[in-house]
Amino acid sequence: MSNSFFQKDIVSIRDFNKEKFDTIFDATDKIISMNPNERRELGRGKTLGYLFFEPSTRTRLSFEAAMASLGGTYIGIADASSSSAKKGESLADTVKIMSLYSDVLVLRHPLDGSSRFAAEVSTKPLINAGSGTEEHPTQAILDLYTMRKEKKKIDGLKIAIVGDLKYGRTVYSLLYALGNYKVDVHLISPQALKIRTDSTYEIKKRLSYTESTNLEENLDEFDVIYVTRIQKERFADAEEYNKVKGSYKIGPEIIKKMKEDAIIMHPLPRVDEISPEVDSTKHAKYFKQAEYGKDTRAALLALILNEKGF
Amino acid sequence: MSNSFFQKDIVSIRDFNKEKFDTIFDATDKIISMNPNERRELGRGKTLGYLFFEPSTRTRLSFEAAMASLGGTYIGIADASSSSAKKGESLADTVKIMSLYSDVLVLRHPLDGSSRFAAEVSTKPLINAGSGTEEHPTQAILDLYTMRKEKKKIDGLKIAIVGDLKYGRTVYSLLYALGNYKVDVHLISPQALKIRTDSTYEIKKRLSYTESTNLEENLDEFDVIYVTRIQKERFADAEEYNKVKGSYKIGPEIIKKMKEDAIIMHPLPRVDEISPEVDSTKHAKYFKQAEYGKDTRAALLALILNEKGF
Amino acid sequence: MSNSFFQKDIVSIRDFNKEKFDTIFDATDKIISMNPNERRELGRGKTLGYLFFEPSTRTRLSFEAAMASLGGTYIGIADASSSSAKKGESLADTVKIMSLYSDVLVLRHPLDGSSRFAAEVSTKPLINAGSGTEEHPTQAILDLYTMRKEKKKIDGLKIAIVGDLKYGRTVYSLLYALGNYKVDVHLISPQALKIRTDSTYEIKKRLSYTESTNLEENLDEFDVIYVTRIQKERFADAEEYNKVKGSYKIGPEIIKKMKEDAIIMHPLPRVDEISPEVDSTKHAKYFKQAEYGKDTRAALLALILNEKGF
Repeated sequence: MSNSFFQKDIVSIRDFNKEKFDTIFDATDKIISMNPNERRELGRGKTLGYLFFEPSTRTRLSFEAAMASLGGTYIGIADASSSSAKKGESLADTVKIMSLYSDVLVLRHPLDGSSRFAAEVSTKPLINAGSGTEEHPTQAILDLYTMRKEKKKIDGLKIAIVGDLKYGRTVYSLLYALGNYKVDVHLISPQALKIRTDSTYEIKKRLSYTESTNLEENLDEFDVIYVTRIQKERFADAEEYNKVKGSYKIGPEIIKKMKEDAIIMHPLPRVDEISPEVDSTKHAKYFKQAEYGKDTRAALLALILNEKGF
Repeated sequence: MSNSFFQKDIVSIRDFNKEKFDTIFDATDKIISMNPNERRELGRGKTLGYLFFEPSTRTRLSFEAAMASLGGTYIGIADASSSSAKKGESLADTVKIMSLYSDVLVLRHPLDGSSRFAAEVSTKPLINAGSGTEEHPTQAILDLYTMRKEKKKIDGLKIAIVGDLKYGRTVYSLLYALGNYKVDVHLISPQALKIRTDSTYEIKKRLSYTESTNLEENLDEFDVIYVTRIQKERFADAEEYNKVKGSYKIGPEIIKKMKEDAIIMHPLPRVDEISPEVDSTKHAKYFKQAEYGKDTRAALLALILNEKGF
Repeated sequence: MSNSFFQKDIVSIRDFNKEKFDTIFDATDKIISMNPNERRELGRGKTLGYLFFEPSTRTRLSFEAAMASLGGTYIGIADASSSSAKKGESLADTVKIMSLYSDVLVLRHPLDGSSRFAAEVSTKPLINAGSGTEEHPTQAILDLYTMRKEKKKIDGLKIAIVGDLKYGRTVYSLLYALGNYKVDVHLISPQALKIRTDSTYEIKKRLSYTESTNLEENLDEFDVIYVTRIQKERFADAEEYNKVKGSYKIGPEIIKKMKEDAIIMHPLPRVDEISPEVDSTKHAKYFKQAEYGKDTRAALLALILNEKGF
């Protein structure tokens, strides 16, 4: 019997349910504990082809490292918007040709729906590595895996998501993913960076959450504090940015007020939302999280490429 | 006995004859039908080094995918004109050093003769991946292979080459290659984009052809319709471009008038010379052609790297 | 017993002594004579991660080719200053994350001390591929290896270092490295490009040398003539550059006055400091030197990655 991800696309986190998450999480546990020589059989002779229409060094390297750990290779275009597309080639053609050259595709694209469309024209399974305003399914997978791994559960967690909740597809994908679990979610952001109202209808169908501008309110109750970067370029006014910037900074003072076993997560890169002093505390899990990014992606690729699973 | 391509350069399509083409075509047939594990022995431990003094993502990926399919690796400079050359290094030095780091070189360069020169200074076999105005031998090889594979022959074909015949080395290389066969070639282009007169003397020594500005004239007789991209940037006047652009567009109307078993080819990327509706017809072979690009290049690399052939 | 380089950083050439050099030189001899299949076991399943905050195509390719020759893979950022760093990420974070994705790191950075700092935050061994004004340890290793290989010794050599001695970290690293040997060093440069006085105190503790502006003075006594590129961009005045440029050019006239068995070295790329006519003489060792660059780096990587050596 085929595993349920074999030769399948990963387009939207909304297509996931608990069972699908569990399949990937269990596969990730196995990947991590696997003998490296055995693991390198899972992608042997396979080629990952990536198309990044938005640059994202971090995500690209994570996929490359994942594929390398499976014994496979990778080719691709790190800045696709400056290559064939510049010559007027359609996304469909670029994707079709990349799917002739590789066994699995990884696409990053600024437009909503681009990934769904690309998956339809591709003759090989396609993984969405970030598209439009809301979708970054492999980021949500690694975020949830980090919670499960570090907190030993997802159901029952009290989770604060802090910072810029308006821009950045990470937050939206995480919320859709959390919609599959019984979690208590608190969205904490400056007024100007609240979650977009055109997304809340869909999210609320899956998940109830509380909104606040004050990080310190329930600080002693959160199991997970998920911090995001506040990007200067989002503000028309530099002064406005400076006002907001400091207000959600995680430093020693905040740490003291947190639960003993709370964890801090961040999709990285960070600027100064988390003080470097926090890195050495037991709460800091953002580097672990980045490492799990490689592992969850390796698991996903291995499931897509190997019919019987592993 | 060594195969005739072992450790040899591929500099110009003019160096080819029918026998050489047959060797590569037969090797390509074999590559395609080969067990992947066996195929990955053909380049094992070998490194391809590429130097692209003109960017060409498509050609680079095709060579990378070909080398990966042989179990080898690749290193290189995707935009060589912005690297060492910028520091004033000569082409000779760049090529010499790359040939210390790799087992076979792939060079793309804007100047005529660059590839011949580079092959002389290189201590490893060198493949011309496009140079100057006329030479793109691996493109011509894949074009001919596509005809042989899809039409079961090359001799006897009636071939239309359509679009921009002035710029674009693809057309010239294809014409030189076709000079080895008994084919009936029709060159169809706007007046301003006719084949360059300074090349016709050489081409006519090998091949007779008919010139026309009208695609529909013998449309029902062509076995192969080879379409090329008309590049906006070639026109001083935008209006002139717009006039020309539509006139050779392959769409459903054109398809209806074509021979039942005619095939449409295109070196890609296309802009709008071929309507997407054509893609799903049995005539459309341009994606197959791109795939054969990988296979013919893999065959060529395997011949160059393996003394006894395979 | 572990070899002394196993899992160790290579940060500064000042940390080296004769014994360390000998370990690498012997390992390089072995790498060169090794069966390729055996050699490819030394890096099998390992990933090199590179971070170039200054572009250096040559050094990057050399490390990639070295890693490929060991059967390993590589990922990285060829222009790190335009990637995550642009989003405001600290060097520490970039290095930490790269060390999650790879087994050994290679860093190039414009700032003095960057490599020492990065090695401290990295969880994997880190190799300095050039930092600040003085440090380029793997270049010094390959330079010394070239002397040992081509002159059969280092002690006792009379060495001229010629050209731009002010800028270019290569010269400083070479001088620190030579400080471990009994050598007679002559620094020959235009007045404006003499070695920086703020470095001479440290260098003089290890090595005595003679300074001169005249290349021809002791020309018939040098065993090694190490030529460096004089970069136009170092001069405020173009005329000043043109005056200096020609004065140290190695051509047939200079060759005639050299010792019978003198060798000419150059870190490359060269512009016109060495005339191409020199390439075919027995004195020219700069391409050999580039090749040894790949071999010494492969040896170093193999020692870092394999506990028992090889």
